Amino acid sequence: MSLELSRVCSAISPSPTLAIDARAKEMSAAGRDVVSFCAGEPDFITPQYIRTAAHEALDMGLTKYTPSAGTLELRRAICDKLLCDNALSYSPKQIVVSNGAKFAIYAALCAIVNPGDEVLIPTPCWVSYPEMVRLAGGVPVFVPATRENNYIVDARDLAPYVTEKTKALLINTPGNPTGSIWRREQLRDIAKLAVARGFYVISDEIYEKLVYDGEQHTSIASFGEAIYNQTIVINGVSKAYAMTGWRIGYAAAPLPIAKIMSSLQSQVASGSNAIAQYACVEALTSFKGVSAVEDMRKQYDRRRKMMVTRLNAIDGVNCNMPKGAFYAMMDITELFGKYYGYTQVNDSMTFAELLLENADVAIVPGSAFCSEGFCRLSYATSMENIQRGLVRIAAFIDAMTDEPSELPHNLPADQQE
Amino acid sequence: MSLELSRVCSAISPSPTLAIDARAKEMSAAGRDVVSFCAGEPDFITPQYIRTAAHEALDMGLTKYTPSAGTLELRRAICDKLLCDNALSYSPKQIVVSNGAKFAIYAALCAIVNPGDEVLIPTPCWVSYPEMVRLAGGVPVFVPATRENNYIVDARDLAPYVTEKTKALLINTPGNPTGSIWRREQLRDIAKLAVARGFYVISDEIYEKLVYDGEQHTSIASFGEAIYNQTIVINGVSKAYAMTGWRIGYAAAPLPIAKIMSSLQSQVASGSNAIAQYACVEALTSFKGVSAVEDMRKQYDRRRKMMVTRLNAIDGVNCNMPKGAFYAMMDITELFGKYYGYTQVNDSMTFAELLLENADVAIVPGSAFCSEGFCRLSYATSMENIQRGLVRIAAFIDAMTDEPSELPHNLPADQQE
Repeated sequence: MSLELSRVCSAISPSPTLAIDARAKEMSAAGRDVVSFCAGEPDFITPQYIRTAAHEALDMGLTKYTPSAGTLELRRAICDKLLCDNALSYSPKQIVVSNGAKFAIYAALCAIVNPGDEVLIPTPCWVSYPEMVRLAGGVPVFVPATRENNYIVDARDLAPYVTEKTKALLINTPGNPTGSIWRREQLRDIAKLAVARGFYVISDEIYEKLVYDGEQHTSIASFGEAIYNQTIVINGVSKAYAMTGWRIGYAAAPLPIAKIMSSLQSQVASGSNAIAQYACVEALTSFKGVSAVEDMRKQYDRRRKMMVTRLNAIDGVNCNMPKGAFYAMMDITELFGKYYGYTQVNDSMTFAELLLENADVAIVPGSAFCSEGFCRLSYATSMENIQRGLVRIAAFIDAMTDEPSELPHNLPADQQE
Repeated sequence: MSLELSRVCSAISPSPTLAIDARAKEMSAAGRDVVSFCAGEPDFITPQYIRTAAHEALDMGLTKYTPSAGTLELRRAICDKLLCDNALSYSPKQIVVSNGAKFAIYAALCAIVNPGDEVLIPTPCWVSYPEMVRLAGGVPVFVPATRENNYIVDARDLAPYVTEKTKALLINTPGNPTGSIWRREQLRDIAKLAVARGFYVISDEIYEKLVYDGEQHTSIASFGEAIYNQTIVINGVSKAYAMTGWRIGYAAAPLPIAKIMSSLQSQVASGSNAIAQYACVEALTSFKGVSAVEDMRKQYDRRRKMMVTRLNAIDGVNCNMPKGAFYAMMDITELFGKYYGYTQVNDSMTFAELLLENADVAIVPGSAFCSEGFCRLSYATSMENIQRGLVRIAAFIDAMTDEPSELPHNLPADQQE
């Protein structure tokens, strides 16, 4: 009996994306030509100037512990970045560098949540948010957004969900999985609400650099001292600089919160990889950074337009043009009730499984993002893959019928354009 | 009111070692020639063959996410290591690679502890153990060891502390801060106790490769299936391969526990640095590893003998010869009650502070390890530093008096040997 495992940790939901992803990899390994739109990371490798800095760090022998909150040099570079890009003034003591932005979010939640506290999460939301809130002892409270509102919840949408127990709002702009960007005035109103009602904002800005159509990213912490003192800004180098595998994220927070996060990290994880921290200073401060990021952004932009245009050309599919990040949300509700062979499609998981098995295309069902009726497609993949995959998706949907029927013939071979 | 921060995390003790360490660095920065014995890491940089592998990984562009439990290649290499070195048979699914062994220990505790569960910790213990247990919702129960028993608690010592609430024992062999090694028969008896009474063992074996005087390291998990199914083995490359800054540790656990740890990690941290994982495969599998580790071990061995011999030559100081790791525990209880100037010394923190301010030598007070009456000295530093520092310590202690007195004259300049 005393060998019982942790009830909280045993209840962690296995990521619903994992099953699809694992099956896609199995099929690829078995020789099938699977097109995957599941990636949550850039398809580019890290720019050469950053890898060169890592080579230097290795040659200098920078292989020892760093301070657990990160090297002073990197925390200074982050302060400069936050001032230049976001008009936010922080001192290095307010910065905590961690093993990816993911751990920074978790540490932020641990620092502010007491048992039973509620954390507002607009949905669709990133897969790990609800589990992180639960692991920190809190209760996730979902605030649904709609495609009609471009997946944005504003202050009026949030207000009815605020209670005495509300400890924080977790906001992600530009957002995964929707690609939506909260506008300045929307963020200003949310800031007012947070200050008036007294809750924190954890602002996940990891996709900040990937914005399109002339959109601007704004940090909610920039609307004055009151909201600055209630905001924990989360960012990192993973998405902008194609550095996902380096595992460097960070939080910028009011000093009392930064201190707790830093203590927590020093006791349960220590600092991040030393060589990666050195390379990140170069990523953030070199003049080469701007063009490296811009080159990748332009490629995502072209792919975005191609993918969304093709999706909307399919009968029964609707897709808003995302303004940021590298994901498109395909609305498949009009297809619900239809059949593929003898299987009726009434949810995104069934759709995604059938698509993978019959058309060799992997996508992530919306259920993974607490949002039914959608599937997420990442365009962080080559133009050729986008073209091939979209031909397959169109043929698959075309083969869906109003009544159960024989399984359709094999889908046509790829039509390269 | 709802802006109250987390009560659990706000209560995290700041590490008592930090104050001394910060002050030592301040003094060094101000131009004073401080000799530090505080280091918890090898003074060597990572061997060249491992850094060469990292260069290769950078050139191959291995800069993307790995599976969150670690690359299959690395988990296989770890399985091979555990089989060869420890006679333990694991499959890659039972291995979770994490951001240092520290996070592996925390994840292990999270996986097994329910609120109020007790975790036995022999003291002196590593600084982070008690805080980790508290953060996981558990209650640390300290089982004191003595210098006379060479800081070993055996099954008979542990038994009276086992209750209905005992969930685990956290054992560290070879141990930080004592350098003690649990013997086979002692571990076998503890294994029997754990199986009979039904509690887990978290076995931190990070110093495994650093053993002296022909001692052998044994993993408690190797005493049969029953204890294997109740043990989480913790290890990593930091100490053996001088890779502290790379942040790669791991856990090997029964499958249900490994699954929970893996899920937890996937939601709150994701995988470790990809380049470091590639380099670790080389660290563990290259034929160069054996001699690289052995070269460092021999140097620690020489320093160990020098340091302990010199410590025991000082009146009022007693120091057991450590059998592993790279720490010596200096027993200063005989000095308690004496004065340095007008300050009476009755605890290790006062002794360490006076020593730093007046003799420019930094050591870690035993209070940091839940053990009063001792100070920890690391011999992971050069022979020259050991000689210089020990001359200063001897002069400092020689200047202590039975009655309060004028502050002693400046200590003599270093006498190089």
